[in-house]
Amino acid sequence: MPEQSLKRKLVAILSADVVGYSRLMRDDEEATVRALAVHRVLINEIIKQNGGRVIDSPGDNILAEFGSVVEAVTGAIKIQEEIKRRNADIPDNRRMEFRIGVNLGDIIKESGKIYGDGVNLAARLESLAEPGGICISGTAYAQVRKKLNLKFQFVGKKNVKNIEILTIDKSRSISGCDASHQSM
Amino acid sequence: MPEQSLKRKLVAILSADVVGYSRLMRDDEEATVRALAVHRVLINEIIKQNGGRVIDSPGDNILAEFGSVVEAVTGAIKIQEEIKRRNADIPDNRRMEFRIGVNLGDIIKESGKIYGDGVNLAARLESLAEPGGICISGTAYAQVRKKLNLKFQFVGKKNVKNIEILTIDKSRSISGCDASHQSM
Repeated sequence: MPEQSLKRKLVAILSADVVGYSRLMRDDEEATVRALAVHRVLINEIIKQNGGRVIDSPGDNILAEFGSVVEAVTGAIKIQEEIKRRNADIPDNRRMEFRIGVNLGDIIKESGKIYGDGVNLAARLESLAEPGGICISGTAYAQVRKKLNLKFQFVGKKNVKNIEILTIDKSRSISGCDASHQSM
Repeated sequence: MPEQSLKRKLVAILSADVVGYSRLMRDDEEATVRALAVHRVLINEIIKQNGGRVIDSPGDNILAEFGSVVEAVTGAIKIQEEIKRRNADIPDNRRMEFRIGVNLGDIIKESGKIYGDGVNLAARLESLAEPGGICISGTAYAQVRKKLNLKFQFVGKKNVKNIEILTIDKSRSISGCDASHQSM
């Protein structure tokens, strides 16, 4: 690879994966793969509609980049709301739910992939989200707090390299609620 | 997704990833991404030459399938040998080494991806390999022990769902050594 400089870009990173994927696979591999395929089509579509691009989708994971944190968070909410709506008619033990993490980072682009600690951190944030929930970093929060009418909950500084983490309240009210950032 | 039956196939699964990827990225993101790009081209090429197909390569991971366990293990050995040869001239702290796991499994194919516990297990085996080493399952071993002139070391049954695990001796002798399977 020639020593020309690698392309860097500031992006919002969305990482999603299936809650209890191993258990679902153990219970019924084929049904799980089918459900995953259906959800992946839905999620990819919402990501695209919100200006994002899917980069990788290995196993039960989906990694996407967005040019804007507002778009990434909006997309994440739409994904969770649509999945919740679809899950309403499905028995508890066969429901497929996702965790989503959103971060922003100055990443390196190479051959259509993205690299950097911002990417790894998005995956860590995702693992801290509740089933059906969204977990974002404090730096992502700073970009959306005055632009999106959402309730946020401050999770803390623990676990992930001393960065601030927030979750989006699932009972979000579209109008009339301020984004609140409680300090510890 | 229509309820037609999903395609199943018995394949050998190779999973590889970079040893100490987070540390390398922390030390020098750009150099690490460059080195990863170079290694990925090399690894993809060897996988192809040995009859395999790369399925996913998110982050520092490479997941590939082979129609034969012998081909997968042969490919894995060629990858490790070529990387070792190239690393000889590189300072210790900038060397990129890989761990490789090889398993076999009756997997589900869907949209060019593969799913199943055989896939997850390949990744677990990989995490048990030494830097520059290869770790295979007992079921993979059963397919190659009389077909490849390699030394194997029985690792044990611990850690991974009570399956047998073996590593390939790095000081393998191409001729004259039997594959040995020591019981615990």
